[in-house]
Amino acid sequence: MTWLEEVQWNNEGLVPAIASDATTGQVLMLAWMNRDALAVTVAERRAVYWSRSRGRLWRKGEESGHHQEVLEIRLDCDNDAIQLKVRQAGGIACHTGRHSCFYRRLEGEVWQTIEPVLKSPTEIYRSEN
Amino acid sequence: MTWLEEVQWNNEGLVPAIASDATTGQVLMLAWMNRDALAVTVAERRAVYWSRSRGRLWRKGEESGHHQEVLEIRLDCDNDAIQLKVRQAGGIACHTGRHSCFYRRLEGEVWQTIEPVLKSPTEIYRSEN
Repeated sequence: MTWLEEVQWNNEGLVPAIASDATTGQVLMLAWMNRDALAVTVAERRAVYWSRSRGRLWRKGEESGHHQEVLEIRLDCDNDAIQLKVRQAGGIACHTGRHSCFYRRLEGEVWQTIEPVLKSPTEIYRSEN
Repeated sequence: MTWLEEVQWNNEGLVPAIASDATTGQVLMLAWMNRDALAVTVAERRAVYWSRSRGRLWRKGEESGHHQEVLEIRLDCDNDAIQLKVRQAGGIACHTGRHSCFYRRLEGEVWQTIEPVLKSPTEIYRSEN
């Protein structure tokens, strides 16, 4: 499929993917995609990333329930970065229970946390047993 | 400086940096920073990236005039991605003369250009001789 071949995958076969809120435009997170992740994302209209730590496809929300419905997919001018415009389930993109993963701001020489936890991680990831 | 050491630079000493419009939230571009680029960005309050193609620091706007005043710097939950909230000079972040570098949207199996050229690249990069 040509549209997949147009993407300039890096030497690990990945590109960075920015998820932003389709309504507010706010940046929610940055993750990585390989060719399969992008193809599945398009097919399912749900964000699927490549988890570098787990070495497998990661269906965003598979544990937390905080999946992302994908309304638009954009490619940048160099073909090496993707933007997803998403509807974020629960309004929580971050595994810390915050709206955005970018919740720390540089203030002087300190990365200061400035966004609230909306739901505690223990509640998000509690065992269903 | 501890705040620089908290950043998880990759094995090339880089992190991806998302520039977004401080007013609208819109994603403008994704570029890369090394330690020096981030330090200089903080010192100058202007976006300075690491140009992987040129192998040197790249003061955004040094040729085009389309520099970025940095109003906020954010770090993500994994310490391996940066967000800059910027005021974009000329309203043009992309070297193609568009507002955002993410100007193509996947429509069916085609990356369709959906944002207008605000200023032609030949005009932006014309020789001053």
